[in-house]
Amino acid sequence: MATSTGRYYGAVEAGGTKFVCAIGDDAGRLLVEDRFATTEPDATIATMIATLHRLAAGLGPLSAIGLGSFGPIELRREAPRYGYILDTPKPGWSGTDIVGALAREFRVPVGFDTDVNGAALAEHRWGSSQNVADLVYLTIGTGIGGGAIVGGHLVHGLLHPEVGHLYPRKHARDADFPGVCPFHGDCLEGLASGPAIIARCGSSFERLSPDHPQWEIEADYLGQLCAALVLTLSPRRIVLGGGVMNQLRLLPMIRLRLQHWLSGYLRRDELLGQIDSYLVPPRLGARAGILGALALALQAL
Amino acid sequence: MATSTGRYYGAVEAGGTKFVCAIGDDAGRLLVEDRFATTEPDATIATMIATLHRLAAGLGPLSAIGLGSFGPIELRREAPRYGYILDTPKPGWSGTDIVGALAREFRVPVGFDTDVNGAALAEHRWGSSQNVADLVYLTIGTGIGGGAIVGGHLVHGLLHPEVGHLYPRKHARDADFPGVCPFHGDCLEGLASGPAIIARCGSSFERLSPDHPQWEIEADYLGQLCAALVLTLSPRRIVLGGGVMNQLRLLPMIRLRLQHWLSGYLRRDELLGQIDSYLVPPRLGARAGILGALALALQAL
Repeated sequence: MATSTGRYYGAVEAGGTKFVCAIGDDAGRLLVEDRFATTEPDATIATMIATLHRLAAGLGPLSAIGLGSFGPIELRREAPRYGYILDTPKPGWSGTDIVGALAREFRVPVGFDTDVNGAALAEHRWGSSQNVADLVYLTIGTGIGGGAIVGGHLVHGLLHPEVGHLYPRKHARDADFPGVCPFHGDCLEGLASGPAIIARCGSSFERLSPDHPQWEIEADYLGQLCAALVLTLSPRRIVLGGGVMNQLRLLPMIRLRLQHWLSGYLRRDELLGQIDSYLVPPRLGARAGILGALALALQAL
Repeated sequence: MATSTGRYYGAVEAGGTKFVCAIGDDAGRLLVEDRFATTEPDATIATMIATLHRLAAGLGPLSAIGLGSFGPIELRREAPRYGYILDTPKPGWSGTDIVGALAREFRVPVGFDTDVNGAALAEHRWGSSQNVADLVYLTIGTGIGGGAIVGGHLVHGLLHPEVGHLYPRKHARDADFPGVCPFHGDCLEGLASGPAIIARCGSSFERLSPDHPQWEIEADYLGQLCAALVLTLSPRRIVLGGGVMNQLRLLPMIRLRLQHWLSGYLRRDELLGQIDSYLVPPRLGARAGILGALALALQAL
C-alpha cells in the first residue's frame, strides 16, 4: 500500500473509556486500526505500544506518532512534567508520563495534545473547517470538552481550553438538579453531559419522548456554551460532536438558544441568517478523534 | 527630539466618552498628547484629524497611525466595511468609517483594533506581560471589555472578544437587580460595570463603606469572569485595569473568587500559590489605552 510520501504515522486516541490506535499517511488516510478498553495506566500503555507495533509491522517504520488524550494534560514544553496526564478524576492516571512511554519505545517525534484539540485540527485539515483559521470543536458525550484553533494555531496558554467546566445559568425547569461533576456539581459537564442526562431522566435521549423537557434544557445549556465561546474565543465556526449530538434534533435547537443568549448584540450574518453553517456537525463524524491524533503526528514532524 | 529610528507615529484612543491623540516613537515613548470629548462622528473625526496634524507639526511626518477603538468594530480585512464601527449602543456612531477617514487624510498605514486589544498589546510589549504570549487585558469601567493575545497574536476571528457580555451566575445578595446592559440586562457589564454599581448603590465605590455588600458582589462577578477566561482562552496572565479597579482592595478579593469558581479543578501553581502574579494590575496603568494605540501603529508598519 503506497502513501504519498511513503511515510507512515502512528495515531493514538487516548480516551477515558477506550484507546484507539491506528496507522495513517500524509493524506489523512487511516490504513489499519484497533481499539481496546482503558484500564490502569501500566497495562493500558503496554497494550498501546504492542498494538502500534503490531499494526505497523506489515507497513513500515513510523515517522512520528500523534497522541490525542483525555485531560487535563501538561502541554508546556518547558515544564518538567511535559507529556504527563495531570490531576484527573480518572483513578490511577494522575501523573502518568504517557508521551515519555511512546518516545522511549519508538524514538520518533510525538505530537501531543488534548483529544479535542486534535479533533479541531482534523476538522480544520480534512473536515468541516478547511480554510477556517478560528474554530472550536466541542464534544458532548461522557464529558464535555472543547478544542480551539485561533489564527490557525491550537490554543494552549496556561493549560488548554476546559470549556466543559464553565457554569451556565440554571434553566428554570432544572433548578433542583445538583449536577454530576465531581469538581463543580452543576457546571456544563455536570448539567449537560451524557451522565447528567441519565442522572436526571433515568435514561439517555434515545428513550425520551420528543416532548420531554430535557431536550429544551439540554439545548439551552449548549446554547449558553456556544454564546460564551463566541464572546471569548470569537471562532468563525463551532463544530459540535460527541455521542449526545447524535440526536440530530438538538443542533437546530442549540442554534436558536445561541441566538437567544446573544440577544442581537453581535449582528453578524454568521450568527443570524447563516447560522446553519456557523454551528455545524463534524464532517469527520466519530472519526474526528483518531484523525486528530494523525494530524498531531503530521504536525510533530 | 530624536527617536531611535527617527520615525514618528500617530496614536488615537477612541473611547465612547473621550478621544486621546498622541505622537510616539518606536521605543514606546509618547512625546505629545491631547484629548477631547467624544461628540457626534463627523465633528469628532474632524477634531481627531486636526489634533494629529497639530501634534505632529513640530516633530515630523507620521510613518503610521494606530487606532484603538470602542466597539464592536469590523476587523476582517476582507470585509467591505473593514475599519468601521459596527452596530453600537453609542448614538450616531453605527456604520462610521473611522479607519478610512484617517487613511484618506494621512495616506499612511493605519493599525486598527479594539481599545482593549490595543491595551493588551501594550502590556505585552512594554508592561506587565512582556514574554507572556498568552494574556487577557480586562477593563472594568464605564463598560467591561477584554482584549486577548493567544500564542503571541491578538484574537480576532469572527469579530473580537466581547467578554463583558458573558453572563455570570447571579450572586445570592444581588438576585433582584435587573442589570443595566441595554442588550442583555444582567450580563457582566450590566452587573459589574461602573454604571451598574451606581444604579444599584446610588454611588460609586468611593462613597461606599468597606462593609457594603457591593464589594463582595463585585469581586464575585469579576472572579467568575476570570474563571471563564481561564477555561476558554487559557491565558498565562490576566491584567485587570479600568476605573473600577482603582479600588485596590478589589484585586485580592477577585483572586479568591477566581479560586472559588475553579474549585481546585486546574491545579496550576499560577492559580494557587502564585495567583498574585497571575491576576495583576496593568503596569502601564491608565496609559495602557493610548500606548496600545501606539503599539498598533508600530504593528501596522
